[in-house]
Amino acid sequence: MKSKLFVAALMLAVAVPASAQFAKPEDAYKYRSSVMTLQGAHMGRINAQLKSDKPDMQAIATNAALLDTLNRLFFTAFPEGSDMVANSRAKPEIWKQSAKFKENADKLNAQVAKLNEAAKSGDAAATRSAFQSTAQACKGCHDEFRRD
Amino acid sequence: MKSKLFVAALMLAVAVPASAQFAKPEDAYKYRSSVMTLQGAHMGRINAQLKSDKPDMQAIATNAALLDTLNRLFFTAFPEGSDMVANSRAKPEIWKQSAKFKENADKLNAQVAKLNEAAKSGDAAATRSAFQSTAQACKGCHDEFRRD
Repeated sequence: MKSKLFVAALMLAVAVPASAQFAKPEDAYKYRSSVMTLQGAHMGRINAQLKSDKPDMQAIATNAALLDTLNRLFFTAFPEGSDMVANSRAKPEIWKQSAKFKENADKLNAQVAKLNEAAKSGDAAATRSAFQSTAQACKGCHDEFRRD
Repeated sequence: MKSKLFVAALMLAVAVPASAQFAKPEDAYKYRSSVMTLQGAHMGRINAQLKSDKPDMQAIATNAALLDTLNRLFFTAFPEGSDMVANSRAKPEIWKQSAKFKENADKLNAQVAKLNEAAKSGDAAATRSAFQSTAQACKGCHDEFRRD
């Protein structure tokens, strides 16, 4: 488990290239809000399954795998200064406390990995608990790094 | 190769669940425009590589793999009637000629698979040609199924 988390953290490090990917801060903003729309949709689909009497664990695992990909994309889209884009709710703390922001990213990815693992094992109770921790990781980051 | 395309087509069929995934047509529209933003960004990254003297083939393959995932998500987000959503450029032909629309989806996925394969082989010329065919597949679908 520990080594899996390490690999996940390593992959995240590899998957975060220079923010030179975006010509303008607006492009980064549009990219990350698109990713967040998808993250929200797939979290919602997992939640809908978990609310049912017989959750489709395979569907949950598929959605968790997608979340894993999306999370990695998300955290590549915060070039410094892109909090100044119209409509962006990014706080300057993202860059002022970049180590803490990175910690949040790692935490989210670790939670999603656990969620995926629980869903694959078919254990609905463990999946529910992992889903709640994932939602908490989302909220924790929003509370600290997103404007109201 | 043929069997790979068959598997890709099969995966697409499996990956396209009921459009009951979206509570409102607006949700489907927001979801698919988010996916399209990401598709455009990752096509752009491949294009930027191909314009350089020494394209990073690994980066192209990574982006092609992402496109493969995104394409599959994209074509799940066209519930009937969601062309009526404000700002949507979807034409009613998407549902009136649904077999043809599905054909376009399959074609795009097949092209992206070829692009990924060419990038992995390290052949820049084949990758360029596969990229152009992928862009053509995008454009072909836009010409037929997207309003100006």
